[in-house]
Amino acid sequence: MKITKGIIPPLLTPLHVDRSIDFGSLEKLVDKLITAGVDGIFALGSSGEVAFLSDEDRGAVLRAVVKQVDGRVPVYAGVIDMQVNRVLQHVRQAEQAGVDAVVATAPFYAISGPMEVEAHFRAIAQATSLPVLAYDIPVCVHTKLIPEMLVQLGREGVLAGVKDSSGDDVSFRRLVALNRAAGSPLVLLTGHEAVVDGAFLAGADGCVPGLGNVDPDGYVRMWKAAQESQWDTVRREQDRLAALFEIVFQPIAKVGPAAGVGSFKTALELMGVFESNLMSVPLAPIDDAPSREAIASILKAADLL
Amino acid sequence: MKITKGIIPPLLTPLHVDRSIDFGSLEKLVDKLITAGVDGIFALGSSGEVAFLSDEDRGAVLRAVVKQVDGRVPVYAGVIDMQVNRVLQHVRQAEQAGVDAVVATAPFYAISGPMEVEAHFRAIAQATSLPVLAYDIPVCVHTKLIPEMLVQLGREGVLAGVKDSSGDDVSFRRLVALNRAAGSPLVLLTGHEAVVDGAFLAGADGCVPGLGNVDPDGYVRMWKAAQESQWDTVRREQDRLAALFEIVFQPIAKVGPAAGVGSFKTALELMGVFESNLMSVPLAPIDDAPSREAIASILKAADLL
Amino acid sequence: MKITKGIIPPLLTPLHVDRSIDFGSLEKLVDKLITAGVDGIFALGSSGEVAFLSDEDRGAVLRAVVKQVDGRVPVYAGVIDMQVNRVLQHVRQAEQAGVDAVVATAPFYAISGPMEVEAHFRAIAQATSLPVLAYDIPVCVHTKLIPEMLVQLGREGVLAGVKDSSGDDVSFRRLVALNRAAGSPLVLLTGHEAVVDGAFLAGADGCVPGLGNVDPDGYVRMWKAAQESQWDTVRREQDRLAALFEIVFQPIAKVGPAAGVGSFKTALELMGVFESNLMSVPLAPIDDAPSREAIASILKAADLL
Amino acid sequence: MKITKGIIPPLLTPLHVDRSIDFGSLEKLVDKLITAGVDGIFALGSSGEVAFLSDEDRGAVLRAVVKQVDGRVPVYAGVIDMQVNRVLQHVRQAEQAGVDAVVATAPFYAISGPMEVEAHFRAIAQATSLPVLAYDIPVCVHTKLIPEMLVQLGREGVLAGVKDSSGDDVSFRRLVALNRAAGSPLVLLTGHEAVVDGAFLAGADGCVPGLGNVDPDGYVRMWKAAQESQWDTVRREQDRLAALFEIVFQPIAKVGPAAGVGSFKTALELMGVFESNLMSVPLAPIDDAPSREAIASILKAADLL
Repeated sequence: MKITKGIIPPLLTPLHVDRSIDFGSLEKLVDKLITAGVDGIFALGSSGEVAFLSDEDRGAVLRAVVKQVDGRVPVYAGVIDMQVNRVLQHVRQAEQAGVDAVVATAPFYAISGPMEVEAHFRAIAQATSLPVLAYDIPVCVHTKLIPEMLVQLGREGVLAGVKDSSGDDVSFRRLVALNRAAGSPLVLLTGHEAVVDGAFLAGADGCVPGLGNVDPDGYVRMWKAAQESQWDTVRREQDRLAALFEIVFQPIAKVGPAAGVGSFKTALELMGVFESNLMSVPLAPIDDAPSREAIASILKAADLL
Repeated sequence: MKITKGIIPPLLTPLHVDRSIDFGSLEKLVDKLITAGVDGIFALGSSGEVAFLSDEDRGAVLRAVVKQVDGRVPVYAGVIDMQVNRVLQHVRQAEQAGVDAVVATAPFYAISGPMEVEAHFRAIAQATSLPVLAYDIPVCVHTKLIPEMLVQLGREGVLAGVKDSSGDDVSFRRLVALNRAAGSPLVLLTGHEAVVDGAFLAGADGCVPGLGNVDPDGYVRMWKAAQESQWDTVRREQDRLAALFEIVFQPIAKVGPAAGVGSFKTALELMGVFESNLMSVPLAPIDDAPSREAIASILKAADLL
Repeated sequence: MKITKGIIPPLLTPLHVDRSIDFGSLEKLVDKLITAGVDGIFALGSSGEVAFLSDEDRGAVLRAVVKQVDGRVPVYAGVIDMQVNRVLQHVRQAEQAGVDAVVATAPFYAISGPMEVEAHFRAIAQATSLPVLAYDIPVCVHTKLIPEMLVQLGREGVLAGVKDSSGDDVSFRRLVALNRAAGSPLVLLTGHEAVVDGAFLAGADGCVPGLGNVDPDGYVRMWKAAQESQWDTVRREQDRLAALFEIVFQPIAKVGPAAGVGSFKTALELMGVFESNLMSVPLAPIDDAPSREAIASILKAADLL
Repeated sequence: MKITKGIIPPLLTPLHVDRSIDFGSLEKLVDKLITAGVDGIFALGSSGEVAFLSDEDRGAVLRAVVKQVDGRVPVYAGVIDMQVNRVLQHVRQAEQAGVDAVVATAPFYAISGPMEVEAHFRAIAQATSLPVLAYDIPVCVHTKLIPEMLVQLGREGVLAGVKDSSGDDVSFRRLVALNRAAGSPLVLLTGHEAVVDGAFLAGADGCVPGLGNVDPDGYVRMWKAAQESQWDTVRREQDRLAALFEIVFQPIAKVGPAAGVGSFKTALELMGVFESNLMSVPLAPIDDAPSREAIASILKAADLL
């Protein structure tokens, strides 16, 4: 299946109370998203707690997702690891699971210069016939991908797209402009939840919103309005989703995924989609009453509870 | 004069070949901007090389600008310095020059916590009857201003507005939402050149584009279209201006203002507004032919040459 | 075997020209180090290109090292990965290979707060009876380990030691003082090559110098002199080794391990210990004549060639 | 007077309760330091709250210090400001006050590349006949000075020395080695309080310890022992001073100078040298009982109270 434009939520990975993967809830979430009209599913991204999973669990998630999606939309698989060698092991597993594309970050842990970053993506693409998307997430890998390099790799067919979670909107706009000037070889997706309207106006081809696990319908409506250049509607939907996104600021004394993924999981637990809001060790769950009530109150204001 | 919404370019400070201030060119630039329909003039911002000027030169620039503007639009004055004491000396000088508002950054050089940052703005506002805008520019001062603090200071009448050059669009959107929920005490201006369309869609009250020195008409058209919710026009104007903004990436082996302010000054020299493209010591001018030709070529493509 | 103080070089991982692991050269290197009198061997650290190896290769390296060392000194194994789950897979493999201690970093990729970092080390220690050393390397994992937390985990028997590659000598000295005040539960090793004399004077229990692969004798002499408080000798040895360390600044246009590990491997190739100076994909080897000659010249000045 | 090696404390600037400068306490502090045997006085450094002072107050401090020192040791003056133009105004004032050397940082606020940094120091040196020391303090100015550049400027007579507060001991050791190889044109001073023993062992020519305001005798003893290569004594003195330095970690919820300078001022108030421990607006004083008692208790343990 070809890679698509539009709304491609990064799938959460629900856990049982013993912290094993809750495949039943995973299937429910997949169906909820597809029913809402999303254009693809991105499994094993940062929101999917990919960094915390064993290789066995990564494989099991991919197989379960591909089976449950059953060809209704394309499945993108995160193949996130430190360096090429390990990334390729994940690529092999993703191929066997039958996904439609893989998504890889810049190398991390070891310090890399621009030549190594480029060689890293070339080595991945050369080893697979699946489309490869670059995942630009400097907050995790501490390297920013350069627009000129991305478009050059697009031109050559090395990369099929970019998921931009860089938080650098000036760079993203340059990427859009350079890509358009090159004949649009890359599908350009923004990874942000709360500034998607501006990205769509600027020419993004879609988005990968973690918050889309909680309210896929809102993002689907926003994307449809953008397709029709109904920008005031786009902005209204974004304002509503930005208000909903405030759930991530409610957990007390938590940072990173313990706050972000934690609040998404808490929302889905409160909405009855997940059994628990647990995250992988060592992330502590959001179990204090004030945080949970603050999240519930925001969900109610958004008519999701 | 009340502070305004809309396009408020941060005025460049042209220099003679002996690096003294070229007041003739400064007056020409002021008239060019006002003729184009800008809504205010921001003197002594980062683009005005404020960090490089003596107190005497700062005062002379303000007096010249106020005189040349002559009440046609409000004049905002940067009062940028390390800590309160020196900031207040600049405030006194700005008051004497007759400006309409002052713009202050977080304290810098000495490390500051959030309590010191808040006390800093309170101390400035208490010492002047002029409206005070906060200038959020972490790339220069290495502190990010927090939306909650800004809106609280807005509610209390300490701050009248914010110039956001933080490059953090997610935070800016939160600032817009929190400000609106508080009854919009703050005028919110974006300081970016190339992602203004998204900021306007999100609810920014205006922008302070360095590139507006080069093409004020483009920004004025974009702002008017935004006022009328003509978002496709807004985007088209922004795409044109983003292409023009590529001039800052042309100088070879230059960073910071040597590239950014340097390319704006080179453009205005090429366009016949400035005598020279010189910047303050120790910034080297853009004097190599390839850089200058690349800038000229982009100006021609934008019909500015 | 108990963990030891003194010189514990982080073992390089030599490669054949097809980039498979060169076990013959690995064995030669192990013997060279033990003959020189080192006090332990640290396999699979950053200098061992651990981030680039598959799990299979990691296991093969550990088995080969344990076999070759044959109980002469303790073997420390890096168990470096993003989060607990994967770290424990490496711990299992290290246990099976028969190492004497494991060395783990703070979690990385996902953003972590101090509570998660502490829980991470507790979860690792709880799952193994091997001594666990914390590896403080913010340049790779972007989290600095806090002295108070480390000493508390030492008191409780969670951690047995620290390898400090933080580059923060003020913090390291606080760690030494806090550890001493707590009865010295932790073995404290510095990971730096060129400022070991000061660390020894301050009370470090040993060091883990990448450069120790190239000149183990120099580090062994420095440690012996430090044991006898012959500080002028310590300094003289350090000055000599600091001059040798200049090899890492010779490679042209290279950063990170491509420069550091690359120059160590090039030195060992020039010295006839390694077959090649190749590194893992995508790291480019140091193959230009000027870089190689500069390294050779420094080796000659140090009487190593 | 020629610039000297040894202990050159960065002078605190005591304030009255109305926050005006307390020249009486300043004179007492100068005498206390000189009586203890320091080798120079560095006025208007970061510890002197230079960033918070008006130009008038800077001038008054310099004149008072020069008068009180009265030629007994050389006086170094910080001429710290954003860019060359303002730095030179401070240089003029320092010359008129009769100081013996000036100390300047890299430019800040505006982003600078290496060429601007070098041109900045050249422009300062060209404009004065006083010796110029470079002040390497990236935590404040966000630029690290490169050893190669510093030594080159030393060779050419542009710079006379370096005060290194970079926290980068590897880089400092390279600076020492490069300077020695060049014939030692630069006097190299470390700006750290707690790792001075290692710096002396490595070849530093002296130090500029903020804590030296509180216990100059300890630093003088350490320097003398270092001159005689009594390294175990050096270490013992440093251990004692490192324990005393813990006063800066006692203030609750404070960072930067509010903690560091604040605790030094609190110590001097408790010791009866200063009238108050106040700092410049907007820095809040250390006025809670637990913080003050913790500081007093550490002073008592060091026999300073």
